[in-house]
Amino acid sequence: MKNYIQLNEETVVDYIKKKMDFFQEDAEFTCDEIGDGNLNLVFRVKDVKNGKSLIVKQALPYVRAAGEDWPLDINRGEIETHILRIEHELTEGLVPEVYFYDQEMYCMAMEDLNDYIIMRYGLLEFNQYPNFSEQISDFLVKTLLLTSDVVLDPKEKKERVKEFINPELCLITEDLVYTEPFHIGARNNMEEALEEFHRQEIVEDQELVLEAAKLKFDFMNNAQALLHGDLHTGSIFVNERYTKVIDPEFAFYGPMAYDIGALVANLIMNYISTKAVLEEGPLKEKHMAFLRQSIKEVIDLFKEKSYAMWDGVVKDQMAKSKGFKEHYIQDVLVNTAGVAGCEMVRRTVGFAHVKDLDSIPNDEKRIQAKKDNLSLAKVLVKNRHEIVTGEAYLELIEKYL
Amino acid sequence: MKNYIQLNEETVVDYIKKKMDFFQEDAEFTCDEIGDGNLNLVFRVKDVKNGKSLIVKQALPYVRAAGEDWPLDINRGEIETHILRIEHELTEGLVPEVYFYDQEMYCMAMEDLNDYIIMRYGLLEFNQYPNFSEQISDFLVKTLLLTSDVVLDPKEKKERVKEFINPELCLITEDLVYTEPFHIGARNNMEEALEEFHRQEIVEDQELVLEAAKLKFDFMNNAQALLHGDLHTGSIFVNERYTKVIDPEFAFYGPMAYDIGALVANLIMNYISTKAVLEEGPLKEKHMAFLRQSIKEVIDLFKEKSYAMWDGVVKDQMAKSKGFKEHYIQDVLVNTAGVAGCEMVRRTVGFAHVKDLDSIPNDEKRIQAKKDNLSLAKVLVKNRHEIVTGEAYLELIEKYL
Repeated sequence: MKNYIQLNEETVVDYIKKKMDFFQEDAEFTCDEIGDGNLNLVFRVKDVKNGKSLIVKQALPYVRAAGEDWPLDINRGEIETHILRIEHELTEGLVPEVYFYDQEMYCMAMEDLNDYIIMRYGLLEFNQYPNFSEQISDFLVKTLLLTSDVVLDPKEKKERVKEFINPELCLITEDLVYTEPFHIGARNNMEEALEEFHRQEIVEDQELVLEAAKLKFDFMNNAQALLHGDLHTGSIFVNERYTKVIDPEFAFYGPMAYDIGALVANLIMNYISTKAVLEEGPLKEKHMAFLRQSIKEVIDLFKEKSYAMWDGVVKDQMAKSKGFKEHYIQDVLVNTAGVAGCEMVRRTVGFAHVKDLDSIPNDEKRIQAKKDNLSLAKVLVKNRHEIVTGEAYLELIEKYL
Repeated sequence: MKNYIQLNEETVVDYIKKKMDFFQEDAEFTCDEIGDGNLNLVFRVKDVKNGKSLIVKQALPYVRAAGEDWPLDINRGEIETHILRIEHELTEGLVPEVYFYDQEMYCMAMEDLNDYIIMRYGLLEFNQYPNFSEQISDFLVKTLLLTSDVVLDPKEKKERVKEFINPELCLITEDLVYTEPFHIGARNNMEEALEEFHRQEIVEDQELVLEAAKLKFDFMNNAQALLHGDLHTGSIFVNERYTKVIDPEFAFYGPMAYDIGALVANLIMNYISTKAVLEEGPLKEKHMAFLRQSIKEVIDLFKEKSYAMWDGVVKDQMAKSKGFKEHYIQDVLVNTAGVAGCEMVRRTVGFAHVKDLDSIPNDEKRIQAKKDNLSLAKVLVKNRHEIVTGEAYLELIEKYL
């Protein structure tokens, strides 16, 4: 930590000029701290004269939202850089380009996605992204299947498992997604009007808690593929044409279902939000139809593309066995539904919420939306073995929402 | 490798005298290379005058049986030392004590178990070990359950996963246990009289190969507990009273079932051997009864002791959920049967055999024993979800042998 200095909007311009030849001589700089996460400072450095910009992201040695008493491994930026480079290569640009990583300042510079919007905010403005499910399913299949034992040399895969072991951030997920929401207290956070429902429908539903425990141990033990590890709609930049996945700091070797399930859950929660917030009319219809289609396509395209890619990429001789592909993908999809349910529970009653649900202005509608969300989540966890097609999700949405 | 010199029976005495004060001044030394493994030189250094002895084990930079063209990570001795120390503490002495590890010579000195016999040879002499199943089930429960996420701090557990990642030796298992025996060729090794049976009953049984593929991926991905990784009867020293597990060089974080299954398989193969070799009579009856009891008890005592220990040691809050203990142990036992089946297949048609089967002198009886072994193995793999009690094993043995 000898040469670590926390950057600010004043110092970051000089810092970047020293580090790389990105900007022109006559640049006129603006600089804004644009971070909304909990773990980093994020600056946009822009030359307004020539229209060039980049992003500087510096790790803080503690989790920001929790204050300085929650220490975290500050080297995660280096891991993130490596992950982004791997994902950039695997997906042909579905993540931003990294220009450099500075080991002394725990700081990276990367492509500015200034004509993109964070998907969660885009969805909350009821925008649709027609290429999203096509592109994100590409991201999922390529980053997951191509980093698994199905494809990678087993020695190389194990070296990667080792490199990307991520105890600090995995523990956050283990606690905040898979443990605390299923109990009373800890860092849980919910409206008083939800407390009784939470106790009865979540904490006291022993079958639900048991199934969540199984999913937790799958998360902890199943080193299947190199996950993004935090693939909610706040980790995705979108515009009308493109998709870019950001913030892979939680990445580690874990179950594929964790990425797919987190994503689907966040689409479902935007659906619930939209349903509660918008008046009946063409915008509501259009946005909800887009979400239904996206949910369906994320599941179905993941399966379709995995199947289509399998024969061409599979290296493991046993993975070529008749029926194995179907078993493998089925198993991922089963746990995807389970993960989606856990994510929906924790975003309602746990420490970290989503704006989609919290921003529903009408109290009664918001509480009802959250209860509906929890009810659907329970079904996803408990009946996950039957929820393995896009159509199955749509039927549940129809029935419970 | 700068200071690495391969030891021999002449040089090892001087080496050990320089390294530690174990022997007395007036010692009269004998020294024998006693290794029968493939990866190491093993010497017994003995002071015949005062009756003290120890074992020196030096890693070779290649797999011995395969010649110098199969390079292996020579640092595995250091890992082995760490594992033995962990296991020694967890099991209160069910593994030998390590005196030192020498990083330059890739060499360790450890307790000499000179009043013990390698269990495989003891069983081939039709000896019984009345305390074995009690002690080995202790070893299994303590080394497996106490190194899992159920008990260990999740951060510490992940640091251990990282430390004990073992790509070289895992690959041997992945190839020799889980891949080659289910195909024609490669390093497979069997009597001509078995080739047709192997092709029809193993290679062409698509359901069997698919289930083996699932077990292979469980082996590769399921970082459940710190395994021994090679727990056959050649890795166990026994005498009338005690049991000591040796040679944990294959150790890594993997599925608990892998250790339990390998052990049970080797007991079953001795049973098959005994049945074929001995004339009817009290010795045969006695030895087969001992083996039946041991097979039953390994399974049942693992379950019983895991259940008994669970509440007192479990730390993970979700692992305390009602029904989780039963689910967790059941899952281990299901895959135990599957692993046992794979081990029995590979010891019959794969690269590394067991003396139990190969030493049956009568050709016809030996081939029949091997076919019976393969037939039982198939059932263990394919029906593993129903084979979760000691009684279930005994019923299968009754039916197929």
